[in-house]
Amino acid sequence: MRRFKLTVEYDGGPYVGWQRQANGPSIQQALEQAAHALSDERVTVTGSGRTDAGVHALGQVAHLDLEREIEPRRLREGLTHFLGDQPISVVDCAAAAPDFHARFHATRRSYRYRVLNRSARPALDRGRVWHVKTKLDDKAMHDAAQVLVGKHDFTSFRAVGCQAKSPVKSLTRLTVRRLDEELWIEAEAPSFLHHQIRNITGTLALVGQGKWTPDDMRAALEARSRAAAGPTAPPDGLYLVAVGFDGERPPPADQ
Amino acid sequence: MRRFKLTVEYDGGPYVGWQRQANGPSIQQALEQAAHALSDERVTVTGSGRTDAGVHALGQVAHLDLEREIEPRRLREGLTHFLGDQPISVVDCAAAAPDFHARFHATRRSYRYRVLNRSARPALDRGRVWHVKTKLDDKAMHDAAQVLVGKHDFTSFRAVGCQAKSPVKSLTRLTVRRLDEELWIEAEAPSFLHHQIRNITGTLALVGQGKWTPDDMRAALEARSRAAAGPTAPPDGLYLVAVGFDGERPPPADQ
Repeated sequence: MRRFKLTVEYDGGPYVGWQRQANGPSIQQALEQAAHALSDERVTVTGSGRTDAGVHALGQVAHLDLEREIEPRRLREGLTHFLGDQPISVVDCAAAAPDFHARFHATRRSYRYRVLNRSARPALDRGRVWHVKTKLDDKAMHDAAQVLVGKHDFTSFRAVGCQAKSPVKSLTRLTVRRLDEELWIEAEAPSFLHHQIRNITGTLALVGQGKWTPDDMRAALEARSRAAAGPTAPPDGLYLVAVGFDGERPPPADQ
Repeated sequence: MRRFKLTVEYDGGPYVGWQRQANGPSIQQALEQAAHALSDERVTVTGSGRTDAGVHALGQVAHLDLEREIEPRRLREGLTHFLGDQPISVVDCAAAAPDFHARFHATRRSYRYRVLNRSARPALDRGRVWHVKTKLDDKAMHDAAQVLVGKHDFTSFRAVGCQAKSPVKSLTRLTVRRLDEELWIEAEAPSFLHHQIRNITGTLALVGQGKWTPDDMRAALEARSRAAAGPTAPPDGLYLVAVGFDGERPPPADQ
């Protein structure tokens, strides 16, 4: 049995999310079916984390095991072939240690949230950005974002149905910057709660519109109540950019 | 009769091109139908230039005339409404002088060509980039591109069916730069020949792969024969970025 680490880019638009579900196509299932078509083995593909329906990835990381011998490059090409014209691309494939785990060993997740901040709706980036027509103050948003950096109880920014044991998370980085007509909100943490970034983004938009101050953001955090924070931003603008493995081992010597 | 200047963004993928044609939907036709639905007038929308099937625009400029009185902002909103869910967005609408002409008065066109230069196919930017797997030398491409800057007979880089009277054009700017996994080829000129940028891009790719030198580029230009240059790059990576009007007059005083 050989373990492989995949880095995967996808357009989340046509999928019910990363995770296999009965109600529609998922990215996990697409990869498992491609791996099965390639190897004729029953394959489970384990991701570093779930992404919701409509959320995209530039660098989702996953692992899978295969009995048959295959070079990582061939596996990448074979998966690409059997994925057909689906908007999923295996951008990297490498041999991994037999105990490498894409979810449990991940120590860092980086996300980007793209807001298109102009009057006119997007044509080229439809489904890839959140369109906010009213002018947002990116500096005020960045300042308010700093209130959230660090170790906190993020109950106010967590989906009501979130299954994480604890609402306490360490947000390593949260920045807001303007790139012409877009705002990019970039977040990094060892791990996130369900909807955490989308709830933070929806709340930062209140700050950007001048409705909230950084103090209001602090009050919302301290309230430890979902009702105290702003709305959930849509999935369209969210991208899983990269997953880090600080304690990552080198691949086994026989590969 | 009032004349309006539109700035339009579109995804060229689903269209036969900018220009109205019998064989499928065009961006021009979509705008004309939206303007008709809005005004109940027969409207002609005149663009600064045609873009081919699959070519995108961030800032195509067009003009149209309406009998009915309407504020530019309302016209923009109305066109957007009647365009429905088509990937076309009117990003700006302004009152124009009665003799303003989007094509004849345009003095500068800027295009961008995006090449995705990595092994893995695009997932998120499918149809939006030209995917070139072999590593391209962007510096060699930029050097070779400088051979083409200036006033030249561009017969070697012109579509065989090009209808322009003269093959002599002044290329103001042609740059090649790398942005992570992408190469951006940016071109600016008062006007271009049919397929000129796609033919230049296909030829620059030969330089990037080390098959051609800047001297080969010069020889191809001097040959004045389409057969002497490289292949035509696909439309997917090409974007009309902006159209400039140096002699543009201010809007009439009564608007």
